[in-house]
Amino acid sequence: MKAVRVHEYHADPTIDDIPEPEIRGPLDVVVRIGGAGVCRTDLHILEGQWADLQNPDLPYVIGHENAGWVHAVGEGVTNVAVGDTVILHPQPSCGLCLACRAGRDMQCEHAFFPGLSNDDGGMAEYLRTTARACVRLDPSTDPADVAALADAGITAYHAVRKALPLLHPGTTAVVQGAGGLGHIGVQCLAALSATRVVVVDRNPEALELARQIGADETVVADGDQVRAVQELTGGGADVVFDFVAEQGAETDAWHMTGPAGSLYVIGYGGELRIPTLEFVAAEKNVVGNIVGTYTDLAELMVLAQAGKVTLHTRQYPLDRAVDALRDLDAGKVRGRAILVP
Amino acid sequence: MKAVRVHEYHADPTIDDIPEPEIRGPLDVVVRIGGAGVCRTDLHILEGQWADLQNPDLPYVIGHENAGWVHAVGEGVTNVAVGDTVILHPQPSCGLCLACRAGRDMQCEHAFFPGLSNDDGGMAEYLRTTARACVRLDPSTDPADVAALADAGITAYHAVRKALPLLHPGTTAVVQGAGGLGHIGVQCLAALSATRVVVVDRNPEALELARQIGADETVVADGDQVRAVQELTGGGADVVFDFVAEQGAETDAWHMTGPAGSLYVIGYGGELRIPTLEFVAAEKNVVGNIVGTYTDLAELMVLAQAGKVTLHTRQYPLDRAVDALRDLDAGKVRGRAILVP
Amino acid sequence: MKAVRVHEYHADPTIDDIPEPEIRGPLDVVVRIGGAGVCRTDLHILEGQWADLQNPDLPYVIGHENAGWVHAVGEGVTNVAVGDTVILHPQPSCGLCLACRAGRDMQCEHAFFPGLSNDDGGMAEYLRTTARACVRLDPSTDPADVAALADAGITAYHAVRKALPLLHPGTTAVVQGAGGLGHIGVQCLAALSATRVVVVDRNPEALELARQIGADETVVADGDQVRAVQELTGGGADVVFDFVAEQGAETDAWHMTGPAGSLYVIGYGGELRIPTLEFVAAEKNVVGNIVGTYTDLAELMVLAQAGKVTLHTRQYPLDRAVDALRDLDAGKVRGRAILVP
Amino acid sequence: MKAVRVHEYHADPTIDDIPEPEIRGPLDVVVRIGGAGVCRTDLHILEGQWADLQNPDLPYVIGHENAGWVHAVGEGVTNVAVGDTVILHPQPSCGLCLACRAGRDMQCEHAFFPGLSNDDGGMAEYLRTTARACVRLDPSTDPADVAALADAGITAYHAVRKALPLLHPGTTAVVQGAGGLGHIGVQCLAALSATRVVVVDRNPEALELARQIGADETVVADGDQVRAVQELTGGGADVVFDFVAEQGAETDAWHMTGPAGSLYVIGYGGELRIPTLEFVAAEKNVVGNIVGTYTDLAELMVLAQAGKVTLHTRQYPLDRAVDALRDLDAGKVRGRAILVP
Repeated sequence: MKAVRVHEYHADPTIDDIPEPEIRGPLDVVVRIGGAGVCRTDLHILEGQWADLQNPDLPYVIGHENAGWVHAVGEGVTNVAVGDTVILHPQPSCGLCLACRAGRDMQCEHAFFPGLSNDDGGMAEYLRTTARACVRLDPSTDPADVAALADAGITAYHAVRKALPLLHPGTTAVVQGAGGLGHIGVQCLAALSATRVVVVDRNPEALELARQIGADETVVADGDQVRAVQELTGGGADVVFDFVAEQGAETDAWHMTGPAGSLYVIGYGGELRIPTLEFVAAEKNVVGNIVGTYTDLAELMVLAQAGKVTLHTRQYPLDRAVDALRDLDAGKVRGRAILVP
Repeated sequence: MKAVRVHEYHADPTIDDIPEPEIRGPLDVVVRIGGAGVCRTDLHILEGQWADLQNPDLPYVIGHENAGWVHAVGEGVTNVAVGDTVILHPQPSCGLCLACRAGRDMQCEHAFFPGLSNDDGGMAEYLRTTARACVRLDPSTDPADVAALADAGITAYHAVRKALPLLHPGTTAVVQGAGGLGHIGVQCLAALSATRVVVVDRNPEALELARQIGADETVVADGDQVRAVQELTGGGADVVFDFVAEQGAETDAWHMTGPAGSLYVIGYGGELRIPTLEFVAAEKNVVGNIVGTYTDLAELMVLAQAGKVTLHTRQYPLDRAVDALRDLDAGKVRGRAILVP
Repeated sequence: MKAVRVHEYHADPTIDDIPEPEIRGPLDVVVRIGGAGVCRTDLHILEGQWADLQNPDLPYVIGHENAGWVHAVGEGVTNVAVGDTVILHPQPSCGLCLACRAGRDMQCEHAFFPGLSNDDGGMAEYLRTTARACVRLDPSTDPADVAALADAGITAYHAVRKALPLLHPGTTAVVQGAGGLGHIGVQCLAALSATRVVVVDRNPEALELARQIGADETVVADGDQVRAVQELTGGGADVVFDFVAEQGAETDAWHMTGPAGSLYVIGYGGELRIPTLEFVAAEKNVVGNIVGTYTDLAELMVLAQAGKVTLHTRQYPLDRAVDALRDLDAGKVRGRAILVP
Repeated sequence: MKAVRVHEYHADPTIDDIPEPEIRGPLDVVVRIGGAGVCRTDLHILEGQWADLQNPDLPYVIGHENAGWVHAVGEGVTNVAVGDTVILHPQPSCGLCLACRAGRDMQCEHAFFPGLSNDDGGMAEYLRTTARACVRLDPSTDPADVAALADAGITAYHAVRKALPLLHPGTTAVVQGAGGLGHIGVQCLAALSATRVVVVDRNPEALELARQIGADETVVADGDQVRAVQELTGGGADVVFDFVAEQGAETDAWHMTGPAGSLYVIGYGGELRIPTLEFVAAEKNVVGNIVGTYTDLAELMVLAQAGKVTLHTRQYPLDRAVDALRDLDAGKVRGRAILVP
């Protein structure tokens, strides 16, 4: 089959012809890929940023935002059958450790992450994953339309869902960064709460779009955004979702957070420097957020299939994966680039 | 192997010689039984009370409170190995449905209940269960000492744990019924909260024991118990745990529950008859409670291994299962009867 | 001033000329009434149903859904000033007991309920209440437009808000009774969640309206409604809000509630008869709901002022209060009857 | 009356003879002081550290940990009467703003803090506070025995109570700093949970005492404490309570916090510097903690009166306040110094 493989860091991946993956264990599932999202993390992999942390044997196939159709199943698989349309949680989990048993599968002791850890990903014709990664979809769903929700989508959804108990009517939530994830975050907030949503971004066009999908107020990040948010909120928001979290945005986000408020960190790259007195005197919090769980993905698909969360995508044939990666790197992709067979 | 089998209802079970169970699926686990609790539900099975609901093919092996040592495992089992000391959750779950994924495995769509559903139970030398039922124990643990926690224990623990957010200092919890389950409930309340614990029972000896393990106040159920509890609590308790819930106790329990309070139903047999106005005017609740989850069992074993929850037991050889059942029926068992190999 | 007073039960109230209320305590507030809702509870008062429970000295002024403008304040009042537009929580609370301190002011030890308890209500030109009942509104608000939210509104809002943690995407909520309260409940569910909303009512017109304001499915209560809901939900809903709770509806509501689900009782009049086994085997709950708190009212006003919750009203001059009560009794009022000065 | 007044910063306060405070508003309460705790914050006030933030007019009376007997009440006070034994929440609140109405009185918009803000404190014979600061005690209580719980106590209790939902059996909590607050924190953890408690401190004697009151493990902070905690916890604790939070302890505390864990900051002085990636990759949180609420104080008094939280104190006559402050500064006070009349 064709697959997009990384042979060395700081170089383009190549389209290779490799054997199809096969069922190896009783809970394995092989999926024929219908859509594979191209994510900024893929660029970071190519730059070698994840080499130390994940240390995959090269060459290997990237791609961690996948949807398609079940092609083969192990003997212990009972939740999907050959032919089912599925979206795949990016991190298969064991289902047996205490974290899995409590529904916190991102903390699974035995998880792996195809396309990031030392396991082949989904920029290919077929992918091997496990039963616990598969969410079955309505058969009419085009996998290419939803694939990006598998990683970007549940990351935004997860943070919003955790914050919902803080976001009763009368509160204000700030979304910093109206790109792919922030865009989904705004839609989730509009679908799941009546909080006032203030979106902050450098790009006026992104803010215009944010208004159309649920933002109540927008603020251009022109250097004066912290003061603007403080004025709009009377001293700071109840919750700030920081989808940027680098190049000073992380500090802005803290200062946009009001007394008894919480900063939800989703982006990364920068460093927060906060006097402990500020945590104490105003009783403020910083909440870390990882990729969402399997149930987050299942719930997000309910919103997607009801049309409450949508995603602009641009499709590229699998053969043109390198073009898609370059376009993403050059800021030429509006919404999400999706590789299709 | 030897096994205690039911051949017909309204008759004693017999000790039969049957083949040992074998691994059939990749997640199966066969356990050599070290202790099997004898439960009132076993009497109900023999009386045919579960015949319609579970409809097992007779003859079959009863016994749903089991602990022992892993004897064989399927190829997909990674959480336990042959030789491990284990206690078994009574209801193996699939790990794949949405309820399982959210940590609510008692609502699993594909669960079964060996010894109750149409699957052989643990009053035998060996039992087949699955990986998701096994909680690994310290190797020094004697399975016979803990087996009863597998069902009776987690039922009481589950109800108490759910109620903890309601039981801050200054509140009062009533435990109605100081038998096997109530006894564990009192210990859990003492270990996990500083609520004031009031225990209600007909039996003064049971109340004396309750005092030793954590009850702050006791009330003899002599007909005047509702008024007594209302006086002790200034109009009703914050939480009432009803481990009886039949023969009028269920009505008492409702009347012992104060404004904005919650009645946790754990026992069964009776019928609650409550005007809807009483729910509304005093904002009171009735909370149903089923057997605890896998994580409940894992947590309860932490309490047990720390000595914070203990259980009085009386051992019978497996051959004398009928004696154990008769003693239980006759009210002659103090604590829990346990069959041992 | 003019006031609608009850002189005897089972008789029409009369429009009397009585002295205006005056400030008596430091936290008292006298409000000039701009709108007073006419509620079914007023009919029940006239029928003497509340005589034993509240035992007011007759004659007294009824009316417990009030909004208007602050006319006079006691020396300790700091949250509102003369001239402010306000909506009034129906039950002034002390602010000093432990229930008040925890934000549970409906459980206040020293509360009273003007127009129901032995205190004059708001079907009059002026009403005496306290600072802790006043929610300040945008000055442009017409009190007559929002008055009904003061009691009917927060009762529905309170139940919905409590249930939100149970209503993530993928769940189903049933609203039984699409009258005044149910109507608000549906709007609150649509504004605050993405749960699927199924509305059940005898009246096809009410169902048609429900569809326009957020119902996803509707079921005519024609005798087959329990089966219809079970089919729509695959065995029962996650949450059932019962705004009827009498004449058998309460039993229907229980049977519409699925495994691990919760029945929220808001209406009253009937009696729930439930075997304790049903609570245990399916781990189902019954949750009582009283009028909402002050913060519920403040939050609901945010939804109302954003146009997310609206209420159809029909205005009657204060002089024609008896007509309004008769129209309500005869089922001729669409939405809510409001008395205006 | 006699009172300890600050006339200038960087100088000893003096014992002055000043007029007794009088009732000025309807909710005012004047308390005859029976015990006034001496707190490190008092030293900081004398050093001028709070001058900019609170800017009191000098001279003024310090002392914010107070208990005594009600001496006079305003006309609107209903919760206490002259002669009642009371402990005083340090920050009287208004009871009318939205934060107060939700039970979050530390976020009250109109709060003040006698002895810290520009209002005379309790190192005197009498103190003026308000009804909403008074918790009534059993008349047999000696105010000097409990005064320190009014500030130090509820600060520790508040943090522990917030963290309880994270601390089920099987978890580990680290308490960093076994001084006055940490000491109370350990007792609260032991009374309210079955989590494993690991205490970290430089002082082996403090650790010995910690063992006696509930610590399961202790770690001497000798430079190797982070590694020691990570070993004890298999990679970090579920919750770390940092009662130090300066001089590098704040960084240690972060590194002692495990995946999906939470760092509760209670002490202050240092600065946390954390890459945003660390929040994201391990889904860790930092939770700020301010002084506890009124209900926290009421609940803590339940624990205190049950003997579950005790405090070592050393009494000084009010006249010798300067000695008490000097002893505190010199590290000579074991437990808490209390001024008595």
